[in-house]
Amino acid sequence: MSEPTERTAVKRLAERGTYDAETAYAIIDEALICHVGFTTDEGHPMVIPTIHARIDDTLYLHGSVASRMLRTVKRGGQLCVTVTLLDGLVLARSHFHSSMNYRSLVILGEGREVPDGDEKTDAFKAVVEHIARGRWEDGRLPTPKESRATTIVAVPIDEFSAKIRTGGPGDDEEDYALPIWAGVIPLTTVAGDPIGDERLGSDIPIPAYAERYGRP
Amino acid sequence: MSEPTERTAVKRLAERGTYDAETAYAIIDEALICHVGFTTDEGHPMVIPTIHARIDDTLYLHGSVASRMLRTVKRGGQLCVTVTLLDGLVLARSHFHSSMNYRSLVILGEGREVPDGDEKTDAFKAVVEHIARGRWEDGRLPTPKESRATTIVAVPIDEFSAKIRTGGPGDDEEDYALPIWAGVIPLTTVAGDPIGDERLGSDIPIPAYAERYGRP
Repeated sequence: MSEPTERTAVKRLAERGTYDAETAYAIIDEALICHVGFTTDEGHPMVIPTIHARIDDTLYLHGSVASRMLRTVKRGGQLCVTVTLLDGLVLARSHFHSSMNYRSLVILGEGREVPDGDEKTDAFKAVVEHIARGRWEDGRLPTPKESRATTIVAVPIDEFSAKIRTGGPGDDEEDYALPIWAGVIPLTTVAGDPIGDERLGSDIPIPAYAERYGRP
Repeated sequence: MSEPTERTAVKRLAERGTYDAETAYAIIDEALICHVGFTTDEGHPMVIPTIHARIDDTLYLHGSVASRMLRTVKRGGQLCVTVTLLDGLVLARSHFHSSMNYRSLVILGEGREVPDGDEKTDAFKAVVEHIARGRWEDGRLPTPKESRATTIVAVPIDEFSAKIRTGGPGDDEEDYALPIWAGVIPLTTVAGDPIGDERLGSDIPIPAYAERYGRP
């Protein structure tokens, strides 16, 4: 359980806020991407989507976003990593009380560039396995040159807050009598049938993680 | 067509960048949420998910995120609004070339608080209709008090860049001979059967936009 800091305390609708690490980890592990915010050298905010992975209490950010924020990281600048899962649309009788069901997580902290070596390999593997469990062993592993060309930034999952909304609409008491449909439209991310690469040999079977793709 | 500025020019894999307004609008209109980045008074970046809507070349941000960034907006601070649609997982033969298919948009600019009045009503309506077309007329409209209690921030869709990746993996030539499955797992956001509120009268039909929910 992380203590809410002045920066991460959920200020609005505080009953929706949680600071429990397992809740945070579950959001990170289910989400395919996160959004990373940082302040550029020019002083303006920048938000970039990227894939990520978690090992214990460390979040790893991979690839192009890591490269772009590296200058921020090297001068000790703060990062804000936000992970959002959208679970449904909440149509209340009044527009004012209409909302969404979601699970979101905001992590604040300094990043750290992961040097070449075992941690970088582990993080690269974690990113691949985060996307499709079992893929690391199946795919062609990174060469030393590829590994050097990959930037990975680590962020401690230490200062964070999660915010979760579930359930139906909460209307004003007098609005329940109105003849207006109200309820939730559930949303899920669904995988379609895998599309084999056009140069794929016909004798190569579709792996189970691609044929029946799902999130943890 | 927006000219790329130094700040929005897509620096990595520049061939994926586009600065076409219609492309940007289509991403905004399809996405249910965006991620808004700003620098807090304390000087650290903050990224919050929120619903949005577009009217012509203006993006409207609604509700709690608008309230939280209002101090930034009032001192003329910059915002970065990022909209991301995830279309698929791209499994290349090598992990190094594995990727995702996506359409993403980064908008930079100053926000403007929308005062009470017609523009605010139009923006509120646009947000409701963005979620479910036809809902505005069906639901209970905001009272003047609710409208005053709603914060809406407008951001010009002026300085932006979109980045799009489509298609299968691009492996190194020598890797095509490897006996490794490669291809794309398509991803879509799917709506389930609507769940009526427990206090809903039995004679109230499910509206078409809820029963057969889909994005534009």
